[in-house]
Amino acid sequence: MTDHHLGTGSIHTVWDRDLTPALSVRPGDTVTFGTLDASDGGVARRVVAGELTAPAELTDLISADAFPAREGPRGHPLTGPVFVEGIEPGDALIVDILEVRTAAWGWTGCRPNGIGLLDAALAEEGLQPYTHLWDLRAGTHASFRPGIRVPLAPFPGVLGVAPAEPGPHPTAPPRQVGGNMDIRQLVAGSTLYLPVEVPGALFSVGDLHAAQGDGELSGTGIECAGSVTLRFGVERGAGLTTPEFVTPTHGGTSRRWHATTGHHPNLMTAARIALRPLLRRLQARGLSLEDAYILSSVCVDLKISQVVDAPNYTVSAFLPLDVFGEG
Amino acid sequence: MTDHHLGTGSIHTVWDRDLTPALSVRPGDTVTFGTLDASDGGVARRVVAGELTAPAELTDLISADAFPAREGPRGHPLTGPVFVEGIEPGDALIVDILEVRTAAWGWTGCRPNGIGLLDAALAEEGLQPYTHLWDLRAGTHASFRPGIRVPLAPFPGVLGVAPAEPGPHPTAPPRQVGGNMDIRQLVAGSTLYLPVEVPGALFSVGDLHAAQGDGELSGTGIECAGSVTLRFGVERGAGLTTPEFVTPTHGGTSRRWHATTGHHPNLMTAARIALRPLLRRLQARGLSLEDAYILSSVCVDLKISQVVDAPNYTVSAFLPLDVFGEG
Repeated sequence: MTDHHLGTGSIHTVWDRDLTPALSVRPGDTVTFGTLDASDGGVARRVVAGELTAPAELTDLISADAFPAREGPRGHPLTGPVFVEGIEPGDALIVDILEVRTAAWGWTGCRPNGIGLLDAALAEEGLQPYTHLWDLRAGTHASFRPGIRVPLAPFPGVLGVAPAEPGPHPTAPPRQVGGNMDIRQLVAGSTLYLPVEVPGALFSVGDLHAAQGDGELSGTGIECAGSVTLRFGVERGAGLTTPEFVTPTHGGTSRRWHATTGHHPNLMTAARIALRPLLRRLQARGLSLEDAYILSSVCVDLKISQVVDAPNYTVSAFLPLDVFGEG
Repeated sequence: MTDHHLGTGSIHTVWDRDLTPALSVRPGDTVTFGTLDASDGGVARRVVAGELTAPAELTDLISADAFPAREGPRGHPLTGPVFVEGIEPGDALIVDILEVRTAAWGWTGCRPNGIGLLDAALAEEGLQPYTHLWDLRAGTHASFRPGIRVPLAPFPGVLGVAPAEPGPHPTAPPRQVGGNMDIRQLVAGSTLYLPVEVPGALFSVGDLHAAQGDGELSGTGIECAGSVTLRFGVERGAGLTTPEFVTPTHGGTSRRWHATTGHHPNLMTAARIALRPLLRRLQARGLSLEDAYILSSVCVDLKISQVVDAPNYTVSAFLPLDVFGEG
């Protein structure tokens, strides 16, 4: 049982079974990974260049030094890959998530006609590109606007192993072997089981989120750099078809919720129908359209209420009222 | 402020703005509704006829007397409609859910090639039609198999008002005006806001579920008769586009969860990918395919983890390990 460290000098931006491992470990070993934020320093560089104004209390914390200019394909900066000795295709890689530590600051953004659930619809209402910077030093909560505090529950957005199919593969879509799953329950104390497709598994991690709602509605959580400590194990011949995990949280710690609903034959459309009036509720509290959208991205949960009442299926969007101190 | 009672003599099985109101109330009034189960007594009649065997402790409780043969279209037996004086199209009907009481027993079913999320796939694996009968008298939990107890959190599966479009409309699909939403968080203590489309709103309720997971995976929760006490109010000119609610619960009270994931461009397919291995986990504990499926329907939650990592979106299925006493 060895404790390893792997820093942000070992970054790759695609999944590829032919990458050279940055580290080789044995089952039972732990690794502490340094990780970079999803923008690969882009937001930090915009602050340093004066293109983005940081709150006064954050300016001294934000530096672009940790983010070298990178050549090659763009993608999430992932730390790895780690070769796990003796693990073979058909096994499951067991990943115990022991600790997740965020940097002192993070960011959440939105933009018209981007990847967010309502980007196209909100563009027609005048949505502007916007990036919010968060102070994460309080640890348990981050302040958004006066009277609005978001609980922090950090997790890695990307945890995965190399696909069998020769690469490179982009990092954006999650796959059968994991990757950019953005599952907010993968907090410290959880155990992830990944289907292994290549010898040694070739595991990588990155894209920490200090907070996110189920859905990641505007396209970003509270994006940040940080570090993750993981312990690796092997389940022989598990034959998994998709990632599984055991977790101590289902999300949701608010005492009261305001929820909106969408009913439609297509679940994605039902989610859009549910989200729009929830943003209106946030705007009615005085938030700008951009603030409403990014706040929803870091704390509103999408749940599938039913998939059996054809022809309309139901998605509900849950806003935790505790963020307003109204629990 | 008057307290009314409306019994199961006032049943209708379609939504229709031209139905004669069974009761007229004023804002501030409460109504206690008697409700029938979704099968409209069909399961009780099968037990009485000996087509379905009830556990010994339930046989004395099950009678078909409360369920007269009904003519006309089939649909959920709904109690109502209630005319709320003074409410107009464009207003919101406020429904405070004060109390939900279940009958002493309930049922959950599955069948091949029906409406459940995996009915077609599981038919190929030999899924049989099956109906499980539950003893609900303990109130807080219901036993399923030795060592497996499901927490009860009763709610009405159907709460809605009449659509503006002349009817009749089937009860199965939920709509912009509510109806068969099957939202398991609509427990006592919640407040529902329904968009009103016809004068008087014409509210009806029915289809109690003693427990259900987000998704209602096999097509039924713990279906039961019972009673619901509601208080009605009006929000003038609310202009809602879809039902909204405030609730004290987000679901989920387990201390640990086993979750499976699906990653796919289509959210419904992602949900199917996630559910299949979860059923395998339940089968590995010794449950039959049918037991695994209906247990998932009453306690497994579907959450939309992300809708922004194109081209694959993520649905996670959460099994509460507390049902096995393993929290």
